[in-house]
Formats: sequence, structure tokens, C-alpha cells
Amino acid sequence: MKHQISFGWLLLLSVTFFTTVSSAPGRLSPVHPKIKPASVSEDFETFFYTQTLDHFNYKPESYRTFQQRYIINSKHWGGAEENAPIFAYFGEEGPLDEDLPIIGFLNDNAPRLTLRINISKQHRFYGKSVPFGTLDEVINDENTRGYFSSAQAIADYAEVLVYLKEKLSAQNSPVIVIGGSYGGMLASWFRLKYPHIAIGALASSAPILYFDNITPQDGYYSVVTNDFREASESCYETIRNSWSVIDELASRPNGISFLSQRFKTCSPLGTSSELKDYLDTMYAVAAQYNHPPTYPVTVVCGGIDGAPEGTDILGRIFAGVVAYGGERSCYEMKKSNSASQTNLGWSWQTCSELVIPIGRGSNDTMFPSAPFSLNDFANSCMSKYGVPPRPHWVTTYYGGHDIKLVLQRFASNIIFSNGLRDPYSSGGVLEKISDSVLPIYTVNGSHCLDILTSSQSDPQWLVMQRQVEIEIIRGWFAKYYADLHTLQI
Amino acid sequence: MKHQISFGWLLLLSVTFFTTVSSAPGRLSPVHPKIKPASVSEDFETFFYTQTLDHFNYKPESYRTFQQRYIINSKHWGGAEENAPIFAYFGEEGPLDEDLPIIGFLNDNAPRLTLRINISKQHRFYGKSVPFGTLDEVINDENTRGYFSSAQAIADYAEVLVYLKEKLSAQNSPVIVIGGSYGGMLASWFRLKYPHIAIGALASSAPILYFDNITPQDGYYSVVTNDFREASESCYETIRNSWSVIDELASRPNGISFLSQRFKTCSPLGTSSELKDYLDTMYAVAAQYNHPPTYPVTVVCGGIDGAPEGTDILGRIFAGVVAYGGERSCYEMKKSNSASQTNLGWSWQTCSELVIPIGRGSNDTMFPSAPFSLNDFANSCMSKYGVPPRPHWVTTYYGGHDIKLVLQRFASNIIFSNGLRDPYSSGGVLEKISDSVLPIYTVNGSHCLDILTSSQSDPQWLVMQRQVEIEIIRGWFAKYYADLHTLQI
Repeated sequence: MKHQISFGWLLLLSVTFFTTVSSAPGRLSPVHPKIKPASVSEDFETFFYTQTLDHFNYKPESYRTFQQRYIINSKHWGGAEENAPIFAYFGEEGPLDEDLPIIGFLNDNAPRLTLRINISKQHRFYGKSVPFGTLDEVINDENTRGYFSSAQAIADYAEVLVYLKEKLSAQNSPVIVIGGSYGGMLASWFRLKYPHIAIGALASSAPILYFDNITPQDGYYSVVTNDFREASESCYETIRNSWSVIDELASRPNGISFLSQRFKTCSPLGTSSELKDYLDTMYAVAAQYNHPPTYPVTVVCGGIDGAPEGTDILGRIFAGVVAYGGERSCYEMKKSNSASQTNLGWSWQTCSELVIPIGRGSNDTMFPSAPFSLNDFANSCMSKYGVPPRPHWVTTYYGGHDIKLVLQRFASNIIFSNGLRDPYSSGGVLEKISDSVLPIYTVNGSHCLDILTSSQSDPQWLVMQRQVEIEIIRGWFAKYYADLHTLQI
Repeated sequence: MKHQISFGWLLLLSVTFFTTVSSAPGRLSPVHPKIKPASVSEDFETFFYTQTLDHFNYKPESYRTFQQRYIINSKHWGGAEENAPIFAYFGEEGPLDEDLPIIGFLNDNAPRLTLRINISKQHRFYGKSVPFGTLDEVINDENTRGYFSSAQAIADYAEVLVYLKEKLSAQNSPVIVIGGSYGGMLASWFRLKYPHIAIGALASSAPILYFDNITPQDGYYSVVTNDFREASESCYETIRNSWSVIDELASRPNGISFLSQRFKTCSPLGTSSELKDYLDTMYAVAAQYNHPPTYPVTVVCGGIDGAPEGTDILGRIFAGVVAYGGERSCYEMKKSNSASQTNLGWSWQTCSELVIPIGRGSNDTMFPSAPFSLNDFANSCMSKYGVPPRPHWVTTYYGGHDIKLVLQRFASNIIFSNGLRDPYSSGGVLEKISDSVLPIYTVNGSHCLDILTSSQSDPQWLVMQRQVEIEIIRGWFAKYYADLHTLQI
């Protein structure tokens, strides 16, 4: 009955996105921004579902529809007779396009899971699922962008899955939803809100507790700091001391120009903040995507620590920039004005509901103080979009406070996977909630590492993490099929 | 620590409502239409919460607010130090007004539950919680009525409860949500969607499975039929045979006028359907609210069976009308045109999302055939409101199919209470889902009987049902407080 089958898998666009308010990095993408995706496998077929614009209201406008893209690999699907499992990868903040083969978790583990079908769904308003125009157009339309919310997005997924199961006569096929980063949040929220549609969720690096005051504001940058400190105490000290050196220099006559020279910027710096933001982002991205085998944090610190003896602090920091970015004629430190979908969409999402309060106190990290001010943030959102954020809606709708108390006798079948070197792990679920709502984390892992394609060079702890996840999911299936049998469905 | 306290409780308006499409009765109100509520206890304080119009979108209009009424009895509340429980009664299809003391479950059981506070919340668009005008105005505004949905309603309750717990510093007080009929659906759905806000739900007579094709269409009228048949086989036979007699008479010259005479109608019947609808409704209401000590079904059958020997079928049926409604100079059989809130609101709700397919085949009940046609229903909704219903959204959003398979390893702390003589019990949860998601039903019970005020004359099975429910809820509290202690919250 159970064939060993080859299997492909999907993932979403890997662009970096930056919230342009506060110093928070706000990237919530499974893969490092520089990873270039390979081409789409031929096994993937693209479809469009005529999706309801507004699931929760019944105004005439609510009935408008748009074409939502989803992609299916059903090459090896043998039909619904065996109630074979369906895996659904949830789109997040980016187009569901060029980048299918990066997330390899399912691809690699297909034989062990006897997978049959997998579906990847594009989050509304991203990629080819933008209603009524380009994202640029709709994000500038206060009416249309108002429908761009997480609750509508998972309701979209619910509708598509119900439709597909019916179309495939696969009503009894167990569905597992999977996502990384923001997509991981959506996956765990989906299991909580739609248990009748998905029997389980793998939520990789999903910081569902980084809302309200559940996680300390400095959680993100504390982990970045720890990553660097564990890599090298001297590297950490150099970075920690560098900010005041930059400030001091910048305050001198021609100081900015001098900084531009020392950091070989492609165009002259306007302010020292441009340099500091660039460095801030570099450290954060290196820590978040501190993947084997290269381990970018080690690379940056290799540059900083490896500079010739006698090199001053700025010289060491620049050596870190070079080590990380490679030898170049100049370094572009200005923020790009290019409005990528992720920038556009994520900026709106964080300004409407996904308010992730990342901040820093004065002495808690290796970074300068930058506390998160909800007030300032709300004002900046108001001026951008004309409406204030609803910072408490996520915890009102999805929960988060006292999660163990709430979920230990409610809910089942959720894996919250994390790597503790991922700064977002500070807002992840790291405690065991119950026998089937489980954290699976690695001390040395980084952002969404477990759902990326495996490689010969993967360390043993990563191989183990994936194996454990697979075993847990196999256990869910076993129970599900036993239940199906017992209930004679 | 635990005081025995006196306690008051709330309930919602007890008007009957009729869907005006199909022959389905569609009443989903906890109490019989004729019950006259007593006045509001002085222990109840009324407040208004500035409620968000649209929780799920972020359009400028979504941020509009309206004043939502809630009522609190906190007379005996000793503060939050003891994490004393909060009971929240969910408003349903009617104003939350004159009618507080009818639903007596909590009132009667306060000492055993060591209750401290209870909150009753008015469903959006009913009573004094109508946004932007009278219900009549907003129900005629295609834009505003679009926000009148169950998902928005339970999101309202979530916001109010989060707000109140914070205001009262009662974050660790366990909340139990309670509702009857449609309010019972909302209570169970709330527990499923917002487990972080309510630790349990008592859903009395909530037909959450009367959607899609989960429950056979004839479920409702089959129970009505059984009720009459169990009361009296001859009564059942008389009713079953009466429809063709009426039809036959109506087809004769002056037949309608003759029927008007025989049934002493206050104004002449226009068609025989008026009479048949009147009788249909009388039987259904008698069965649904077949409460002790009078048992209306027995009353109707007493009239029918007790007519003098030799009385013809029409005479017997009329004797049933008299027995049920009392001796009068005439009987009003025309449907009232008065647009009660419940009529207005429920008609819209059933035409938008709450499509309950009640129908009858040709020989499955004591009623004439009247199959539910989704197509006809949708057309009638279109012509009334300009938008079609979304008949599958309830099961997509809340589930319902294979409920045991879905919830036995997910969810906890829900009581689905029913009385099997209630026609809506056919769409209720009657099987044990798990150790804490439980049906508590009585063979002889009727609609929402368990949450009505107890009386000296209550039969032992009803007393027992309430006791069992109380014991279960006490068990939830015990576990919750133990968890709180273990987790040192």
C-alpha cells in the first residue's frame, strides 16, 4: 500500500524585508535574502482559485473575488482511496514564485512520510494573488489594502483546502500545514483555528509570542548579541564599543565624510545613522540566518578579529563588512528605495495588526539603545496609512499569553521548531505545552533551518531535529488512521 | 475563602422568530415565545463598550465604532485576588433587555459554583447594540448589515472579555461562556476559537451540526413527529391525516371561507397555507418548548384526543388549537407583519451565513412534504438582500463534519446539553467526543430547559441534568486552579 515516492516541495520568495519604522529588523522570511532560488520543478502545477475577498462580512463588496494562486505537486498521488496525506505549505510575505526547491524538508523526507500530494498556497496580496491590480496599486488604496490581513489569509487557505479535498474526493486525507517564519505563525494559527481542516502543523521559527508584552522587547537583539558573544568575546566587545566611536567621529567636522571613506561607501553617507543601520542589519541578518556550513556570524567575527594587530575599531568593523559581503570596490549602505512586494506588504501588515515590538534598552545588548515606543510606531503608521495599528488584536484573536496554561488541555499536534541562535526564537514557543504540542529546538540552529533542503554537510544536530519532526508527524498520522478505523469513517 | 453567595443571572429576549422562507420554523431562542419576562434585578449594572465595527479588516470604515451594551452582576464580587470565576452569557438573536431572570441556571447554582461575577453581552445589531441607527434602518442598509455576522459577534465578545479582565485585574479568573440555542452555538464556537479567553463552554440546545448535509433535513420535523406520536398515537394520526382534509376542503368552492369559520379565525383566511403554517408552527413550538410541568405537546394532544366522540378531524385539530391557545372569541392566524428585531435580524443571519436546511420528505414526518431547496432558498435571499447566502461557510469556519474525529484529540471543556424532545436536538452534539467534550442530554427534555430557572415541580431527570453540568464545570475549575498553581502563575 505505501509506496516510496519521489517528491517535490515549494517555498515562498526569499526577499528580505525591512520595516522602515523603528530599528527593528522585522525580517520574517524563512531564507537568507541572498539565497538565489533554483527554477520551479516540472512536477508543480499552477492553479487559480476564485477566492472570496472578505470572508467575515456580507457587504456587497465582500462578495468580490480575486484569483488566488496555488501550486500542486500531485505527480505521485495515487488518488484518495488510501486517504493519503496532504501537505500544505503556507505562503507568507512574498510571491510564491521562482523559489520552490529551497525549502526541502518535505522533498527530503517524502519516502519516510509516504507523501502523496502537496499544495502550496500564495498568501493574498502577494505574488500572483494580488486582487485588483499590482500590489503597489492596492497597497496605496486604503480600501483594498484593508482586506490584507492574517485572518483573511488563513480563511483563504481554509476555503482552498476544503475545495481541494472535495475536488479530489480526499475528505479523509489528513492535512498537515507547514510554514516558516510568518508562514509558521500562520500554520500554527491555522491548526488552532481550523482543527477540522488540518490535523497538525509544523511551525518553523514562528515567533507567535513576540506580541504585546509577552516577550521582552530586547529578545531579538539579545539573541543577536549572544550569538556574537559566543562566537567571539573580542568580536562582541569590538562591536559593542564601535557605536560610540562612530558617533564621536560623526560629530566632528567632516566626520561623516571620513566615515564614508573608511567604509568605502558607494555614495557619501548622509548621516551616521545610515552606516549604523547598515551594520545593525548586517549583524541581525548574520545571526538570523547563521546557517551551517558557513555560519555568517563566525564569518563576520573572523573579519573583525582577524584584522592585523593594531587595526583600530573602525578598521575591524570594516573588516567584518568585507568578510561578510566579500571584497568589493565599494559598499552600498543606503537603504534601497525599491518597493519589493515584501517591503510593501510587510510594512502594511506590521502597521495594521502584526505589531512586533522589537526594541533595545541601554545596556542589554551590544547595540545602542533603541526602545520600542508603541506611540511613535502608531504615529508613524498613522502618517503612512491614515489608520492606527491594532497592537492587541493578534493576542485577542490568536492568544499567546500564558500559552501553556491555555493550550496544555486544549489543542494538539503542533510542532514549534526553532534554532536558539535565531533571534526570533526569543518570541517562539520553547517550552513543552503537552505531549503533542511540542517545541523541537536546536541550540545551534538558526531561522527556519529545519525546513530548508538538507545537505551532506549538515551537522548531526540538524539531521536529528528533522528526524524527530518526521517521527512526530508519523505518530500523528498513525493516530489519525487508527481513529478513522475505529470510528469507521 | 469560598463564600456562598447569592447571585443573579441574565438572559436574552424571548421573542419567537420565523424565517419567512421555506416552511422551516427556524426559531432558535432559548425560551418559549409566550413567556413574559420579569423585571431586571437591581444587581445588574449596564455598561457600554466602544466596539470595533470590523475586527477582520483594516479599511478606514473598519475602524468605525459602535456602543455595545453589556450587563454585569458583580454585587458579590470580592475582587480579583482569588481569581474568582467569571460567567459570560452570550447574547443571541434578540435584545438583551426585559428578560433577565428567566434563565436561571447560574442564579440557582451560584452557591455551588462559588460564583462571583457574571457578564451578559448583547449580540451586535440586537437590542441596544445596534450600530448607526435602528435595526430596521441598518438591516435595510446593504453596507451596514454586512457587518452583522457570527464571526464578528464572537470577536466582539472576545474584545469585551479581554477588556473587562484587564479592567478588573482579573486576568487569571477563569471564564465560562454560556448560551442557549443560537447563543449556545456561539458559546461552543467561542470556546473553539478563543480558548485563551474562555476555559469552557456550556452550550445548551445548540444545533451546531444542522449545517451542510451533516444532519438529515428532516431531523427537526422528525423529532416533532416523534414527540406527538409518543404523547399519543391517535393524536399523531389525526394530525398526519388532517393536511389532506384541509387541502381537499380548500379546493372546494367557499372552502377557504368554511375553514375560516371552523377555525374561528379573527380575519378570513386568504389561503389554506395560512392555516397550515399556523398549525405547523403551533406543533413545532409546542414540541420545541415542551417544558414541564405543562408539556404543551400533551396539552395539544389532550385537546385533539379529548374532543367528543364523533368529532371530525378538523374539529379535533381545532380542539387542539383551543387547548393550546385557550378559549378565545377568535384565533389570529395571519403571520404578524410586525418586524421584531428577532425577525429582522435572524432573517438576515439565516440568509447570509446561518443556512439551516430544515426540510421534510413525503412520508418521513406527520407533516406534508416540504423539502429544503438550497436553490430556492438562495433565490429568495437574493431577492430580499441582493446577495446570496454562503451556505458552506459555517462548516468551513467552525467545522462540524466528523466532529468526533476532529475534536476527540483537540479541544476540551465543552458541554453540549440537549433535551431529546427538542426538535433542534437532531442537529446537536449527542455523542461523547472526549472526557471533557461531552453531551449531557435528557430523553424527556426540551429546548434550553437546563438553563432556565429551576422550579419545585422540576422532574428528577432535569434536576439531575443540572447537577451533572455543575459537577463537570466544578471539575474544570479544579483542574484550572491546579494548573495555575503548578505553573505558578
